Amino acid sequence: MDPVRIIEVKQSIFDHNDKDAAALRAEMKKKGIYLMNLMSSPGAGKTTTLTQVINRLKGEMTIAVMEADIDSDVDARTIAKETGVKSIQLHTGGMCHLDAEMTRQGVEALEAGDADLVILENVGNLVCPAEFDTGAAKNVTILSVPEGDDKPLKYPLMYQVCGLVIINKIDVMPYFDFDIEACKGYIKKRNPDADVIAVSAKTGEGIDEVCDWIRREVKAWKEA
Amino acid sequence: MDPVRIIEVKQSIFDHNDKDAAALRAEMKKKGIYLMNLMSSPGAGKTTTLTQVINRLKGEMTIAVMEADIDSDVDARTIAKETGVKSIQLHTGGMCHLDAEMTRQGVEALEAGDADLVILENVGNLVCPAEFDTGAAKNVTILSVPEGDDKPLKYPLMYQVCGLVIINKIDVMPYFDFDIEACKGYIKKRNPDADVIAVSAKTGEGIDEVCDWIRREVKAWKEA
Repeated sequence: MDPVRIIEVKQSIFDHNDKDAAALRAEMKKKGIYLMNLMSSPGAGKTTTLTQVINRLKGEMTIAVMEADIDSDVDARTIAKETGVKSIQLHTGGMCHLDAEMTRQGVEALEAGDADLVILENVGNLVCPAEFDTGAAKNVTILSVPEGDDKPLKYPLMYQVCGLVIINKIDVMPYFDFDIEACKGYIKKRNPDADVIAVSAKTGEGIDEVCDWIRREVKAWKEA
Repeated sequence: MDPVRIIEVKQSIFDHNDKDAAALRAEMKKKGIYLMNLMSSPGAGKTTTLTQVINRLKGEMTIAVMEADIDSDVDARTIAKETGVKSIQLHTGGMCHLDAEMTRQGVEALEAGDADLVILENVGNLVCPAEFDTGAAKNVTILSVPEGDDKPLKYPLMYQVCGLVIINKIDVMPYFDFDIEACKGYIKKRNPDADVIAVSAKTGEGIDEVCDWIRREVKAWKEA
């Protein structure tokens, strides 16, 4: 296995982020690349979910992954080893999120002009990443059962900016006080248009539904 | 893009905050109040752990709690209902962390001049709160088993700034791939001086050890 490439990304000026994001989105659209920004708390299961999804979809579309972290290259190594798709590690230099310029630096370093789907796994953080448009076609967030069903009450913006909320680790539901119907209600309260899919990235339950969601999104993005 | 200028602004803010934090810490010291800053990912069990700890300690010392969140008053209500100690909710207005000035506002609003121990439950976030000295006597962080044993590799600063790391939710260890010895090794790598205590805030296991740690800290703070 090639050593994982680590890209040190630098922050752009805050005021220009929305413009940078719109420009990046337009470029990605032109190239027919669907950029998905995946966010969650630390340890909610972003990398495990991606591994499951990518292994089901890689035969029918070209996928590349950017793993953002403050330190370590654990996730990019996992994606490369478990899925074989092109992946790079972005180091944020202590920053708690990625902005559009940092995302552009990542996309360029990824050299994935032929990709149908590029996935950005953002820094594990329910607050800051939600505030910065990365230029993605859609935002997706994962809420894991052990975190509790009340997260949409406490971190409203994250749920407002996401088109899909994945409820992960449903295999351990019996061991936690987690009311999935209440949780879905809190999500809808924050964002009535959000899709919600319950999964276990560990057992694979529900992953096909996430794949169907991505298929529809990528198709619609290319055709629109 | 002018990264140098951004860095200057950041340094200036941090420098200002460090002075504010030192001033608040000195004041708290003079008043004999031990201020503890509790941090973790969203849903790691800060409030549940506090409830357990406070109910064991409230008979022997005066305790007050500041619950910081972006939105909702779920946690302050829980603390008030489950422990009966004085508690207030701080809303950060979207901010991902508390700084020393925000903490001072909280301490003043709390009106707890007679307290031996004031606990600040910071915003659920492994990144930003670690960057800002709140003026606390010590920082404490919780790492919960479902988040994974690799968190100290990915969020180094959080572990570097904490005097105590509580590993929570050990009751569900059998259902997760969590290597507690590896985890302790990663923590020690980041911070050789950190104490580490494994607990289940749900069952109460290990909580007495946390209480002993706090007793020693509060005593040493008052005597030094």
